[in-house]
Amino acid sequence: MADGANGRAGGDVKAIFRQIYFDLKAELLEDPAFDFTDEAREWIDKMLDYNVPGGKLNRGISVIDSYKLLKGTELSDNEVFLACALGWCIEWLQAYFLVLDDIMDNSHTRRGQLCWFRVEKVGLIAANDGIILRNHIFRILKRHFREKPYYVGLLDLFNEVEFQTASGQMLDLITTHEGEQDLSKYKMPVYHRIVQYKTAYYSFYLPVACALLMSGENLDNFVDVKSILVAMGTYFQVQDDYLDCFGDPEVIGKIGTDIEDFKCSWLVVQALEHANETQKNILMENYGKSDPACVAKVKSIYKDLDLQNIFFEYERESYEQLISSIEAQPSKQVQDVLKSFLHKIYKRQK
Amino acid sequence: MADGANGRAGGDVKAIFRQIYFDLKAELLEDPAFDFTDEAREWIDKMLDYNVPGGKLNRGISVIDSYKLLKGTELSDNEVFLACALGWCIEWLQAYFLVLDDIMDNSHTRRGQLCWFRVEKVGLIAANDGIILRNHIFRILKRHFREKPYYVGLLDLFNEVEFQTASGQMLDLITTHEGEQDLSKYKMPVYHRIVQYKTAYYSFYLPVACALLMSGENLDNFVDVKSILVAMGTYFQVQDDYLDCFGDPEVIGKIGTDIEDFKCSWLVVQALEHANETQKNILMENYGKSDPACVAKVKSIYKDLDLQNIFFEYERESYEQLISSIEAQPSKQVQDVLKSFLHKIYKRQK
Repeated sequence: MADGANGRAGGDVKAIFRQIYFDLKAELLEDPAFDFTDEAREWIDKMLDYNVPGGKLNRGISVIDSYKLLKGTELSDNEVFLACALGWCIEWLQAYFLVLDDIMDNSHTRRGQLCWFRVEKVGLIAANDGIILRNHIFRILKRHFREKPYYVGLLDLFNEVEFQTASGQMLDLITTHEGEQDLSKYKMPVYHRIVQYKTAYYSFYLPVACALLMSGENLDNFVDVKSILVAMGTYFQVQDDYLDCFGDPEVIGKIGTDIEDFKCSWLVVQALEHANETQKNILMENYGKSDPACVAKVKSIYKDLDLQNIFFEYERESYEQLISSIEAQPSKQVQDVLKSFLHKIYKRQK
Repeated sequence: MADGANGRAGGDVKAIFRQIYFDLKAELLEDPAFDFTDEAREWIDKMLDYNVPGGKLNRGISVIDSYKLLKGTELSDNEVFLACALGWCIEWLQAYFLVLDDIMDNSHTRRGQLCWFRVEKVGLIAANDGIILRNHIFRILKRHFREKPYYVGLLDLFNEVEFQTASGQMLDLITTHEGEQDLSKYKMPVYHRIVQYKTAYYSFYLPVACALLMSGENLDNFVDVKSILVAMGTYFQVQDDYLDCFGDPEVIGKIGTDIEDFKCSWLVVQALEHANETQKNILMENYGKSDPACVAKVKSIYKDLDLQNIFFEYERESYEQLISSIEAQPSKQVQDVLKSFLHKIYKRQK
């Protein structure tokens, strides 16, 4: 299945990881729990290829990277496979969230292509496809981890993180609704809570927690590590908000619509904190409108308030705080895992 | 929590079951895994009350009924509570499916009220609410069953049944798309496959499987029982299709739209089997259109083909076959469980 990737360049890990996607997909298309018609198998095949492997794969590959660092010694082929399978479960989870979020946000593009629900003949079937993506995670876990001592730990972990993510998404959706009535409700404390739940747990904590479980660890002993990863996740989401407005759509692979969608973005929260009354009024009148002229006015306020530099300063400070917390960790392997994560995202352009 | 319900009338069981909903909801609104804002708690509270307890509760109550019959002796208060908790997990699962299905089918009413996604200010947030409903199941299971020897069995069971249901829904959605091109693709074999997965597993197998797990049984030993329950589920869905067209919307609590929606309904499959060329052409031209005049033409063909009586004959035959399979079962308790289920649904009006 997977050749030993130990000691070789990162590119090999990605190639092995990508190959395992096809193995997992083939298993799912022959799942004994469901009697596929040819059309159903074809639909799922296309739906998976469209939605699962197209991202940067950072979350997925972090599982193997983390596990290697925790273990310290070479991984067997089977260990590589299992770590990759867990990595793909996280990518599958991500695909599930993105398919549904794009429907709810009425988005246009994702990862450089039309959102799945906008593809001809898909439409709202995409909602059910999202559910199927989620269910695949548990089919993969059952097939490959049922006999492991940490199987229940994995099920509980994925369930809890999914719950936290969906709850964070709910908070985001409700806050956006309130914000539409009263933009000044967008403040840092609620922003932080949204981000912690919506992004940080599944993007940062989950991959490392998977590696810890595979290593035979009890997750209750890693609460500090969880906190650091949640803080990293917050930083990551702030970057995401920044790129939505200031990033190059061609590079980031999606057209940002946070302003039009009245999102509780780090940018608008910062803008409201720094703006004078005139600027606040312009924001209130123009935020959350699809008219490009209104969007332009908002971006103009952002420039006047020098938000780009405020972001760069935030980025620098966050990095330093994170490095400092990480270096306070007693275990060198855990430090390596955390730093590895941090350096993948620091100063990213997409 | 729950008073002993043993030996009293069925109404008491329902009352106890309903009361436990409030206990479970209260726990979910204080779930330590998520830091609720007041607005978020209020949203979930309303969302739950709107979507979870409003059905007939047959699936949920079947767990307690089945467990009582299997155990044979009186249930302790704790056993009643646990069986009810599992019953509510199934009602939560049902709520999840219905919220999402109504979005995908663009339905109008459900259980005598507007579909959740049509409620003001809800809209597509309903998709995320559906996900939260699903996640609640695993929060309930973790809180109350984590230390049980059958905990993993419960997780695997709910995951597998959810996967089968979502796969059945996918098959239904794809088949409807194909049928829109070519109505004559609607045939009994594909109808049966859709129904088996989309309805039978979660409505009939799941409640009994929960009771079996609580009784300490290994589900692998109950494959025959599973088959009988799947057959019962098919019968139930045929009734559902019949009521969609011929039932009283006030009684069934929803406005049927299978004809307008081009659904692969038992009625249209039967109609195509019995129709002459002229009638088939009328069906091809009028099925799947929202124009009430077209719907009327389809219903008129159904009447000409005497589908109501074909249904009554099917209902009678199915009942007899089911009774016969049930009476071939070696265990008297299992027979009682299966007959109890059958008599709840035979000749139902909603």
